[in-house]
Amino acid sequence: MYLPPIGTRIEELDTPALVVDAAVLEQNIARMAEWSRRTGCAVRPHAKAHKTPLIARKQLEAGAIGISCAKLGEAEAMVAGGVPSVLITSELTGAAKLSRLIALARHADVLVVVDEAANARELSRAATAAGLRLGVLVEVNVGQDRCGVPPGGPAADLAATVAGLPGLRFAGLQGYEGNLQHVRTVEERQARCLVSMAQLLESRRAVEARGLSVGICTTGGTGTHDIAGEQEGVTEVQPGSYIWMDADYLQVQGLPYQGGLTVLTTVISRQRPGAAIVDAGQKAISQDGHGGPQVKHAGLSYAPMGDEHGKLAGNELPSLGDVVQLVPSHCDTTVNLHDHLHVVRDGRLEAIWRVEGRGKVT
Amino acid sequence: MYLPPIGTRIEELDTPALVVDAAVLEQNIARMAEWSRRTGCAVRPHAKAHKTPLIARKQLEAGAIGISCAKLGEAEAMVAGGVPSVLITSELTGAAKLSRLIALARHADVLVVVDEAANARELSRAATAAGLRLGVLVEVNVGQDRCGVPPGGPAADLAATVAGLPGLRFAGLQGYEGNLQHVRTVEERQARCLVSMAQLLESRRAVEARGLSVGICTTGGTGTHDIAGEQEGVTEVQPGSYIWMDADYLQVQGLPYQGGLTVLTTVISRQRPGAAIVDAGQKAISQDGHGGPQVKHAGLSYAPMGDEHGKLAGNELPSLGDVVQLVPSHCDTTVNLHDHLHVVRDGRLEAIWRVEGRGKVT
Repeated sequence: MYLPPIGTRIEELDTPALVVDAAVLEQNIARMAEWSRRTGCAVRPHAKAHKTPLIARKQLEAGAIGISCAKLGEAEAMVAGGVPSVLITSELTGAAKLSRLIALARHADVLVVVDEAANARELSRAATAAGLRLGVLVEVNVGQDRCGVPPGGPAADLAATVAGLPGLRFAGLQGYEGNLQHVRTVEERQARCLVSMAQLLESRRAVEARGLSVGICTTGGTGTHDIAGEQEGVTEVQPGSYIWMDADYLQVQGLPYQGGLTVLTTVISRQRPGAAIVDAGQKAISQDGHGGPQVKHAGLSYAPMGDEHGKLAGNELPSLGDVVQLVPSHCDTTVNLHDHLHVVRDGRLEAIWRVEGRGKVT
Repeated sequence: MYLPPIGTRIEELDTPALVVDAAVLEQNIARMAEWSRRTGCAVRPHAKAHKTPLIARKQLEAGAIGISCAKLGEAEAMVAGGVPSVLITSELTGAAKLSRLIALARHADVLVVVDEAANARELSRAATAAGLRLGVLVEVNVGQDRCGVPPGGPAADLAATVAGLPGLRFAGLQGYEGNLQHVRTVEERQARCLVSMAQLLESRRAVEARGLSVGICTTGGTGTHDIAGEQEGVTEVQPGSYIWMDADYLQVQGLPYQGGLTVLTTVISRQRPGAAIVDAGQKAISQDGHGGPQVKHAGLSYAPMGDEHGKLAGNELPSLGDVVQLVPSHCDTTVNLHDHLHVVRDGRLEAIWRVEGRGKVT
């Protein structure tokens, strides 16, 4: 493995390379922290976007109350990297998972989510056997139709079950309107998010009616955090992509965050008329779900050409050996393809950070 | 990081997990070797499918003449893992790449491809400065319309340029009809492959007419190796996926290779009517280009639900905590998401192999 020396100019980095603009990263983190201070809504940033403990630490230093993680493996990587408090936002089940969870809970504050009583009982048995008390949020389906109990009564029923089980501490509720994050207009996003929040807050009231305290009511992503976070009763939000955005999120109106993430790629062939073939394909830049990347040069477009190649088209094509920057359409899955993040300031390499959570899907 | 002990039953592996059936892998490798012996066409298997040096070694032990690699980084991983001979099937350009290439060529037999005289001169300067002689194939476009010189005269011109440059040794021609690998019917694949082979062999004759010897004439993948490899003048083929196939390749008619690769996933939520939510999403199983995975259980289908989740639908849904096997639609990009390959025989874990070439996109 070969890593370039600090100070290397961006055009001289070996490609494909995942690159972040340090100034944009810092500005986006500061901007979210300002929003949090202004509104009083806490932020528990989602590590699924960066998977990098050093970025998590910067978010914590800016005021974040903890870090959200998509998977137990991602949480393990964050804790090993020095993050003291993690919320795992997906349900965990099975003996292998729970033994790892218990081990992790001995080294950090760990919160988990459940959407089924059987899963809560499984967690209770594991925690009790280990002599631990696990903080548990009940996940409520607020419109994404993936995980989560139905809102209202079912949420309250499960909260009561959790509260009554040994080894568990009922810590609150989680919603996630993931289906709304990329809704383009502010008006539609606002209207639909308020419907989701009504379901979450209805659940909160139903839980409180059972005499239980909802310490945490967490929801929202980059696209909806400002709408969700201003609702009375929502205590925190979980934005991830805001730190560097992507080509899809940059088309979502009304978000004050700047694009800072690119994949550098080199033209390796100019034999086809009207096309330049580059060395970044599906293994270097994600093309699932959100379409292909944008090219950060006016007048050029990118089309996939398999695992290792892409095709640039346009009027003023780059030459053999030229380096161009692609803006990923989906930052989470693109970052997941790379071992290293090249941190650039003023056009030169300032640091290389290992993406410790990459591939940590278990 | 946690790895399960040898002997673990497949249903007890932590998920998502990339799993290969050892018996199927061995049978597929043996079957390709038999084809090679029968036809006299050499095989240089493509490591882009497995990215795992131990599998490359098994292919070499079965008679393969060397290993093909998509990128220099993949070749570095193979050489570090003990593979003595690598062909890098994509063009390499730029100072960072060429310094790595020269370093690698000191430790293994390395073949590279070019499709432009300027690139050949760049390679010549680097090799000459290092006192090395690099084996170079001229890549010919035989219908994929990606890299490669046009067939015939342009191929012969570039071959003559390569042959005349110090530090380079003209080693032959590469074609790749990647556009035909997944053509479903034998008849259409045969007819179209013969058109591509006519272009490659026309190029061979044009090169020979300049008095140059074409030592290597390499082409073909899993879908077309038997058609391409039986043409007089084609010396070898580069199949990759045949070792374990995928859901897409398994629909290509007339291929004698068995499916052996799956991703294990666990049901983590049963709250939605008619659906079971599993813990494998776009970060565990590729969904780009070739659609979603198949479920290895009759009557169940999979739909993506984001980076970390999928949704199973069907009549007899599995229960919370149940483990199911998904057959990737695209093996190369799915393997590229995993650090470890779980090797299973008779339902129990026999070995864990590190996917050393994973993410080696530079």
